[in-house]
Amino acid sequence: MNPLRKIWAEGRTSFDAFLSIPNSWSAEVMAHAGFDSLTIDMQHGMMDFQTTLNMLQAIGNTDTVPLIRLPWNDPAITMHVLDAGARGVICPTINSAEEVEALVSACRYPPRGFRSYGPLRATIKMGPDYAKVARQEVLVFAMIETANAAEQLEAIASVPDLDGLFVGPYDLSVSLGLQNLADIYDPKLKEVLDRILATCKAKNLIAGIFTGKMEDAKTLAEWGFQHVSHTHDSAMLTEIAKAKVKFLKNL
Amino acid sequence: MNPLRKIWAEGRTSFDAFLSIPNSWSAEVMAHAGFDSLTIDMQHGMMDFQTTLNMLQAIGNTDTVPLIRLPWNDPAITMHVLDAGARGVICPTINSAEEVEALVSACRYPPRGFRSYGPLRATIKMGPDYAKVARQEVLVFAMIETANAAEQLEAIASVPDLDGLFVGPYDLSVSLGLQNLADIYDPKLKEVLDRILATCKAKNLIAGIFTGKMEDAKTLAEWGFQHVSHTHDSAMLTEIAKAKVKFLKNL
Amino acid sequence: MNPLRKIWAEGRTSFDAFLSIPNSWSAEVMAHAGFDSLTIDMQHGMMDFQTTLNMLQAIGNTDTVPLIRLPWNDPAITMHVLDAGARGVICPTINSAEEVEALVSACRYPPRGFRSYGPLRATIKMGPDYAKVARQEVLVFAMIETANAAEQLEAIASVPDLDGLFVGPYDLSVSLGLQNLADIYDPKLKEVLDRILATCKAKNLIAGIFTGKMEDAKTLAEWGFQHVSHTHDSAMLTEIAKAKVKFLKNL
Amino acid sequence: MNPLRKIWAEGRTSFDAFLSIPNSWSAEVMAHAGFDSLTIDMQHGMMDFQTTLNMLQAIGNTDTVPLIRLPWNDPAITMHVLDAGARGVICPTINSAEEVEALVSACRYPPRGFRSYGPLRATIKMGPDYAKVARQEVLVFAMIETANAAEQLEAIASVPDLDGLFVGPYDLSVSLGLQNLADIYDPKLKEVLDRILATCKAKNLIAGIFTGKMEDAKTLAEWGFQHVSHTHDSAMLTEIAKAKVKFLKNL
Amino acid sequence: MNPLRKIWAEGRTSFDAFLSIPNSWSAEVMAHAGFDSLTIDMQHGMMDFQTTLNMLQAIGNTDTVPLIRLPWNDPAITMHVLDAGARGVICPTINSAEEVEALVSACRYPPRGFRSYGPLRATIKMGPDYAKVARQEVLVFAMIETANAAEQLEAIASVPDLDGLFVGPYDLSVSLGLQNLADIYDPKLKEVLDRILATCKAKNLIAGIFTGKMEDAKTLAEWGFQHVSHTHDSAMLTEIAKAKVKFLKNL
Amino acid sequence: MNPLRKIWAEGRTSFDAFLSIPNSWSAEVMAHAGFDSLTIDMQHGMMDFQTTLNMLQAIGNTDTVPLIRLPWNDPAITMHVLDAGARGVICPTINSAEEVEALVSACRYPPRGFRSYGPLRATIKMGPDYAKVARQEVLVFAMIETANAAEQLEAIASVPDLDGLFVGPYDLSVSLGLQNLADIYDPKLKEVLDRILATCKAKNLIAGIFTGKMEDAKTLAEWGFQHVSHTHDSAMLTEIAKAKVKFLKNL
Repeated sequence: MNPLRKIWAEGRTSFDAFLSIPNSWSAEVMAHAGFDSLTIDMQHGMMDFQTTLNMLQAIGNTDTVPLIRLPWNDPAITMHVLDAGARGVICPTINSAEEVEALVSACRYPPRGFRSYGPLRATIKMGPDYAKVARQEVLVFAMIETANAAEQLEAIASVPDLDGLFVGPYDLSVSLGLQNLADIYDPKLKEVLDRILATCKAKNLIAGIFTGKMEDAKTLAEWGFQHVSHTHDSAMLTEIAKAKVKFLKNL
Repeated sequence: MNPLRKIWAEGRTSFDAFLSIPNSWSAEVMAHAGFDSLTIDMQHGMMDFQTTLNMLQAIGNTDTVPLIRLPWNDPAITMHVLDAGARGVICPTINSAEEVEALVSACRYPPRGFRSYGPLRATIKMGPDYAKVARQEVLVFAMIETANAAEQLEAIASVPDLDGLFVGPYDLSVSLGLQNLADIYDPKLKEVLDRILATCKAKNLIAGIFTGKMEDAKTLAEWGFQHVSHTHDSAMLTEIAKAKVKFLKNL
Repeated sequence: MNPLRKIWAEGRTSFDAFLSIPNSWSAEVMAHAGFDSLTIDMQHGMMDFQTTLNMLQAIGNTDTVPLIRLPWNDPAITMHVLDAGARGVICPTINSAEEVEALVSACRYPPRGFRSYGPLRATIKMGPDYAKVARQEVLVFAMIETANAAEQLEAIASVPDLDGLFVGPYDLSVSLGLQNLADIYDPKLKEVLDRILATCKAKNLIAGIFTGKMEDAKTLAEWGFQHVSHTHDSAMLTEIAKAKVKFLKNL
Repeated sequence: MNPLRKIWAEGRTSFDAFLSIPNSWSAEVMAHAGFDSLTIDMQHGMMDFQTTLNMLQAIGNTDTVPLIRLPWNDPAITMHVLDAGARGVICPTINSAEEVEALVSACRYPPRGFRSYGPLRATIKMGPDYAKVARQEVLVFAMIETANAAEQLEAIASVPDLDGLFVGPYDLSVSLGLQNLADIYDPKLKEVLDRILATCKAKNLIAGIFTGKMEDAKTLAEWGFQHVSHTHDSAMLTEIAKAKVKFLKNL
Repeated sequence: MNPLRKIWAEGRTSFDAFLSIPNSWSAEVMAHAGFDSLTIDMQHGMMDFQTTLNMLQAIGNTDTVPLIRLPWNDPAITMHVLDAGARGVICPTINSAEEVEALVSACRYPPRGFRSYGPLRATIKMGPDYAKVARQEVLVFAMIETANAAEQLEAIASVPDLDGLFVGPYDLSVSLGLQNLADIYDPKLKEVLDRILATCKAKNLIAGIFTGKMEDAKTLAEWGFQHVSHTHDSAMLTEIAKAKVKFLKNL
Repeated sequence: MNPLRKIWAEGRTSFDAFLSIPNSWSAEVMAHAGFDSLTIDMQHGMMDFQTTLNMLQAIGNTDTVPLIRLPWNDPAITMHVLDAGARGVICPTINSAEEVEALVSACRYPPRGFRSYGPLRATIKMGPDYAKVARQEVLVFAMIETANAAEQLEAIASVPDLDGLFVGPYDLSVSLGLQNLADIYDPKLKEVLDRILATCKAKNLIAGIFTGKMEDAKTLAEWGFQHVSHTHDSAMLTEIAKAKVKFLKNL
């Protein structure tokens, strides 16, 4: 079973980081850092499919769960990364239940969906019974990051075989017209987060979220988010490298 | 003129980091962090020539000076990275003046050396007069990281057209049979460092060194090292990622 | 003229294999094995466009005809692989005549379709008259692998400028709700195969099919399939490597 | 500010070339040739995203403005190349105002569009204020290369936040049913070009065009096209290499 | 401890295959086939360092032991692949004890050898104590494949810290001037094999060998070879693909 | 038989160009331009082995003969590119007969040399008899580009199984201390060229040379050079691109 489900079943929070460096070595380094999962960010990260395959293989050297943030709600790439062994996908910019239905259909084998059969690396990595366990194995998250989505929460969350909602607080702030990006204490954003948490609870979905601020990551877990992604590898590299330069040069 | 020479002429220390992730995007991220130079580590880093070319192009988006730690004292790769636009090389495991002579000869055009003419990217990047300025542009460092080298300092430092010595304190500690690796306060290592500094001063060479400890980097600069490399990108990534996991999981 | 058309014109069956290893060397090895054509599988195989280009170049060292299984019915990648010199495409998961029309339109130059002009490698490889011969040169197959498609056969097969139907028996079995995957003797599957053969005959289309079983490949040719793909390179590698291990270890 | 806007503001014509060789070194060579901008051709050129990133980094060594011809009107790749630092996009095969609206929406941040926030390389390259200046920085061109588009000029040009029209004369000739491709003196093609120029003037849009003929490039600039792309790198390579062979072999 | 040592300690034979396809996916497929180890062939295989790194990561998804056949007795690449996590090296064309000494020195840390310290991936994969266990972890094989080597067996086998001899029967046959390549029943070749086996026994070294013939692999194990490599991935692919074509086309 | 031998046997001159762009598509474009051979420049060009393999495969789409300028006189890479299907090598910076002997030995199978057996792509491309025809198939050129070499001509040319001398006029000019680089009319350079031509005639070797000037290429052929390489792809690209910019911008 997908180890993330075990964490959630035990009432714990899974902590995740995004990968934006298109490289298998940095991915393997990150996979040894202790995160429960890593999300290869094919939307804003600098990778495409070929590099993503190498990154999945690198992460496969550890028990860290590899997820993919899809570039878009496109069945071709969705099915391709699942065949390559991704254990879950996070789809950006979901605006409606129809879009979730399209996403879920691409991720599930018939009769539920139209995922095409050919899980080459998924089978080699997860076993010959992959097709049978794929429904449990493959996590499907819909990103809530637009005002539209915030209004359609009930419908979005009601699509069968979706596993969770995942908040993109930067885009959501922009879409809500907020001044400060991803300020989780901003009442308007907070109100949406609360509704997302409540909806997830009601619909038995996992509530996930991304944050660039480390303190917020803990707070969000306390608020009830069960899957919290804190920043990405190139942001971490920038943060530590700049801190070192500042120290070394007495800036 | 190579910007590092300007820093040294002003009596300042240049601060550098090594790159071990074989990727142009992480290299570009690092190039924006504020280091004076970056050293692509073709010895222990995970890259080869093709990736190194892409990394040189990435660093070329900034004013950061790109250096190469060579995989070995091999004229083929030495000349290749210089043609690709490296502005200096650091050669590992130098044991004698003869080895320095071989290194310098591979880096300098005739009559001084035997570098072959064909600076494709070097010319495009540094101008049509590249061949004329190459002697000043291209920095050549010999690594002092064996007991042998520590005994041959005078001879090594006397080879004409060498620009500096660069200490590899880990290998040097091992070679000296020291218990603690790279402990700059260990009297035996300290004695060698002092002699290297004195030799550099006497021979008008730049004294460079690598260190994995941030505090040591400053100390080494105070002791007189003019070019100090503090750790590498994948070590930085490990450091910050593990710190984040520790915080998030209350470890 | 596309050599496959010559084979079919002579009443012979073309035998093909799929390529799922994203590599030009394994592709060149396969291209020397004697198959009439090779299909680079961009759907379930592990390659994307850049590797596909290299594989097309590798196959170009032989007379083997390079085909592409598209990742999806997407005009961007369809036109891209044709520009790169693919001599035919097989489009997965066709469900309706409208989808075939979209596929054919992406593959044919105006006035029939909307393929954009810029056949860089196709022209260099197939000659300056490429645009004129492209209609004959480029084979377009629609995959029949859903129950929907099986019901729409007549309409699907009637779209002008389609060259053939290609059966995906695994997905088709799943979609038909059959217990055993790709069992060509299963009456329900057999009935669909018969109708496909009859439709192809009536509409003057080529009947193609994939099978993972070598014996079935011959049987299917006898039943009338003119283009039979038998398994893919990584499946072959698994098959022979496991057989060798079994022999060596007396398993 | 995007340097192309400065050129146009001064009433000058920007000269551009397309890149079809999927390589960062040839891109850097081209970036030093003196063109005002270079357009990485992801439609007919042989590259995909990963190579495009490297090419953007290579061009970033110079002041040449990097543009992208998109493979298709697909928000995923459009947003991805903008995040990677492209300073403008040219979208092929636009047929209607609705398609322009989709294109523009993918290129503009809310509230105008739905571009998702995460400009990793764009920010590192163009500064922390990127989001604020993105509207001015990012150029959006709609390609006019079908008879449909030629009839919808007024509507297409009226979509807010579009920056220019870009003529694809080869596809346009084909679509208009003309015998000679891209003959700018053909009255039927000329008539459309005139209307495009007039429409651009009326709507305050930039008029751009591609041409394979060097003399035509100058003529088109005189006719009023403000952004003229003359051929692509592999065509140039073919032209000069064949000329050399002809001379050397007295052909 | 290196799992191969465990196999040998138990008196069993380890069975291995070479990898000549420069690709991480085919490597992962092979790693699931059941061989005890896989040898990435950097000499005659089509890979270089960057691809080798990806292949090491792919094999790392399984318990299969990754070895490297070095391109040559060159300390740069030897140390590089060990840093990248290879658990053993096989060095071609050894002709003398001096050459073995150079090989072993490059593979062992001081004081035994001069391997430079920086085991980036080796440490991440094999643990923080890597430096301490490296002597046991890293297997060093010298290839016996020249008449010279056959005459120097005693001296070659006496170099301390070598782990085994590995016979290259093709080159050895050529070098011995034999008509049939790698015919293990040829008395002249057999005589050398017997001496190698005896020498290994006397010196407590592992006797390894490559063979292209599956039956010979078993025979060689019975003769006393403890590590037997049977052919490589692209040869396997050729074998099975040609067999399939033969069957399908009734050849 | 190597087509170049046929050209020379007929008393004709073979015309060649170097490739410095590390890309298979530009290589394929160049291979269609009409040169008799193309030399992948692994010394000053921007490629390494992996890209070279792809370029060899690209050139293999045509009858153009693929040669390699080696990065250095190193048996590892020499044997590797021959295994990958290069039909000849040109070794830089030869200074003595001993160096030629080392080069030739790496290129010839025993008993003449020590080339190791494993011609994977060479066999697939040139046939199962490759080992037997390799002596004729593989061309070995020693570069004369130092004053040392010019003095050792007789000895260098006397090494058995060398096929030709290849002049590097830029490095040779530098080494001779000449003011103008590669001025073939400079009496000092001319004298060496004459001696090289005479030596080749006497020793039955092919006389080859590189030149950056198109007129000189013809002159050199008239003087007796049988294999003339005129410039490289990125120089051609620079030449034509700058010419176009000059025309377009009236510079």
